[in-house]
Amino acid sequence: MITLTEILKNRDKYFTINFFNTLSGFRSVWMAGTQNNEGIKNLGLFNSLVHVGSQPPLVGMVFRPQTVPRHTLENIYSYGLFTLSSVSMSLIDRAHRTAEKFGRHEDEFELLGFTPFYFPNHPDVPAVAESPLKILLRYRENHLITTNQTIFIVSEILNVAIVDSEGINSDGSINHEYYDHAVISGLNDYYSAAFLKSKFDKTARP
Amino acid sequence: MITLTEILKNRDKYFTINFFNTLSGFRSVWMAGTQNNEGIKNLGLFNSLVHVGSQPPLVGMVFRPQTVPRHTLENIYSYGLFTLSSVSMSLIDRAHRTAEKFGRHEDEFELLGFTPFYFPNHPDVPAVAESPLKILLRYRENHLITTNQTIFIVSEILNVAIVDSEGINSDGSINHEYYDHAVISGLNDYYSAAFLKSKFDKTARP
Repeated sequence: MITLTEILKNRDKYFTINFFNTLSGFRSVWMAGTQNNEGIKNLGLFNSLVHVGSQPPLVGMVFRPQTVPRHTLENIYSYGLFTLSSVSMSLIDRAHRTAEKFGRHEDEFELLGFTPFYFPNHPDVPAVAESPLKILLRYRENHLITTNQTIFIVSEILNVAIVDSEGINSDGSINHEYYDHAVISGLNDYYSAAFLKSKFDKTARP
Repeated sequence: MITLTEILKNRDKYFTINFFNTLSGFRSVWMAGTQNNEGIKNLGLFNSLVHVGSQPPLVGMVFRPQTVPRHTLENIYSYGLFTLSSVSMSLIDRAHRTAEKFGRHEDEFELLGFTPFYFPNHPDVPAVAESPLKILLRYRENHLITTNQTIFIVSEILNVAIVDSEGINSDGSINHEYYDHAVISGLNDYYSAAFLKSKFDKTARP
């Protein structure tokens, strides 16, 4: 048994950041797609997606303030709509590069070799055609975390595009192993996932 | 390619809930440990933990309003401190039962056969001794999501207890496969994870 004081003793800032970044464990990884007023397409890597509700369908994302520039957040505020595209195993290397700092006038789709995908009636918000699962979202509300100036954004799911329906189970749940989705821990550690079991419990929280 | 209208066509409420619950993908799974004013210990299952910051170390969690009673949230508000205990493969079946609705006067540690673990100087907030990784937290702020009355809680990490240090990498990141941590999707689907690769990128967001 080891506790925090021993774990961080004589360790530098990067060790501490990596420790806390990975402490909260496994999560999904997504590319957020936006377009700015000049039509420049942007992609950003996000690992903080969290389910907020089903009726209406809502998700939340954390935007860190410490790092600039925040093209994705600026574009979401100015346009209102954005996309999330899932990262499957074969996309990890290219998807991870969307976390790099490109210039405001660089089209990250072109730079990284991704094909833009557009939802019906929404030709201004690009998703990644190569991703098995894409979500179209509308920004709904933001919350400033006063303790560290982080922003929690809540968005409504307007549409979903899935490459095929084979990975949608009969109960509506998605088999993410079927779509070969990657698991991430922190900002850099990628894992693969294998389906183990479904523990349906009719008394569990809906 | 299939989109939302086709996916949900002629489907019932439960299909829709399962679909949106699993849409946001993989995440970690935790048991939240609290104790009420009468000393009754409570455990609740949470899959919404999200990293909010490293300095100070902060995490966020989503609490759904639709489901009653909310023992964990009441106890967090009244006492301020709570714990999170990780769910490893061998604990899945028992940990999943913490999502059931037990009475306010039932000690979930006793009922489910878990051993209470207490952090130094904090004999009033129980964690699960059987978990490889336990976190002691202090409630900091809450945010009401006005769209659906969900609550986003931000808490500060006060201490961490890890069963051994072998799974802490030299850069500070945690190898969650070493600790046999489970992956969850939605509220019922469990996966195992295998480490794939670490993509360190010095230009990436810290």
